[in-house]
Amino acid sequence: MRKKENEDLERLTVDDFKVVDKIPIVVILDQVRSSNNVGSIFRTSDALLITKICLCGITARPPDKEIHKTALGAENTVAWEYYLNTEEAILQLRNQGYSILAIEQVEGSISLNDYFPHPNQKLALIFGNEVKGVQQEVVNICDQTIEIPQFGTKHSLNIAVTAGIVLWDLFNKLKRT
Amino acid sequence: MRKKENEDLERLTVDDFKVVDKIPIVVILDQVRSSNNVGSIFRTSDALLITKICLCGITARPPDKEIHKTALGAENTVAWEYYLNTEEAILQLRNQGYSILAIEQVEGSISLNDYFPHPNQKLALIFGNEVKGVQQEVVNICDQTIEIPQFGTKHSLNIAVTAGIVLWDLFNKLKRT
Repeated sequence: MRKKENEDLERLTVDDFKVVDKIPIVVILDQVRSSNNVGSIFRTSDALLITKICLCGITARPPDKEIHKTALGAENTVAWEYYLNTEEAILQLRNQGYSILAIEQVEGSISLNDYFPHPNQKLALIFGNEVKGVQQEVVNICDQTIEIPQFGTKHSLNIAVTAGIVLWDLFNKLKRT
Repeated sequence: MRKKENEDLERLTVDDFKVVDKIPIVVILDQVRSSNNVGSIFRTSDALLITKICLCGITARPPDKEIHKTALGAENTVAWEYYLNTEEAILQLRNQGYSILAIEQVEGSISLNDYFPHPNQKLALIFGNEVKGVQQEVVNICDQTIEIPQFGTKHSLNIAVTAGIVLWDLFNKLKRT
């Protein structure tokens, strides 16, 4: 069981990444304060061929030393845009046929286990601030809310971990459909 | 779609957590340098009712200000032990009937998508150092290696994100069996 060397992994080059088919998922970051969290989400989005990241409001954006440190350069591969208002990003994506889903603990939210996208559905997934979560006014204009079931004492997961879990889960469900 | 308040979430108290049935998964951290990563893994482990975390070698351990900050106190709910050598933790868990699985990019590793534990299987999952991954000598004495398929330019995911993805995936597969 020899560990693979970097060259064994056959990863894409930056140029290859730009043109390869992406998974029809857009990530929307609504007021995410920590550059480390943003950088980590870029790194995960690179691995799972996410279409685009929309950085909204106070969310840190490249160029940023801390984002670079945690993204390891993935901020140069994954496409991103900045929006002053999260609502603006949502309206644009809705016009492009995306379903708008907030990842948040909301009355009537659907458990991630029970959520299955339709074949060819395009998903825009909103992740919120480290303390306050997705803003209520943003939740109000979503199509649906998805919740990661949690069974312990704490109220929530770290946002970069949350994004990893949700992107992994929905990436695989879209690939299977 | 009203956001839930903390009291709506009906989380466990610390005392309830100590006695509630856990999922038969133990996390082994092999030379994890960053207190933030360790703290984040405690927080995820609290949410998914992980049995125990084995902190090995140079891995940061409580009490630690940074662990506390990212774990938000989950280092006081999830059981943990310290081992000077990762091999020692593995031998103890193997004697207790655990299957020993390294999460690592290894020749012949099985993709996380394709890995399904047997009903009632007890899993010890090893996550490695931020740069070097799981040590080769630790990989050598595992029962199997599991890899998260990755399709972009970067060689790996952040370790706290990796742990989140793998724990979420296997938690649900064990619950379904």
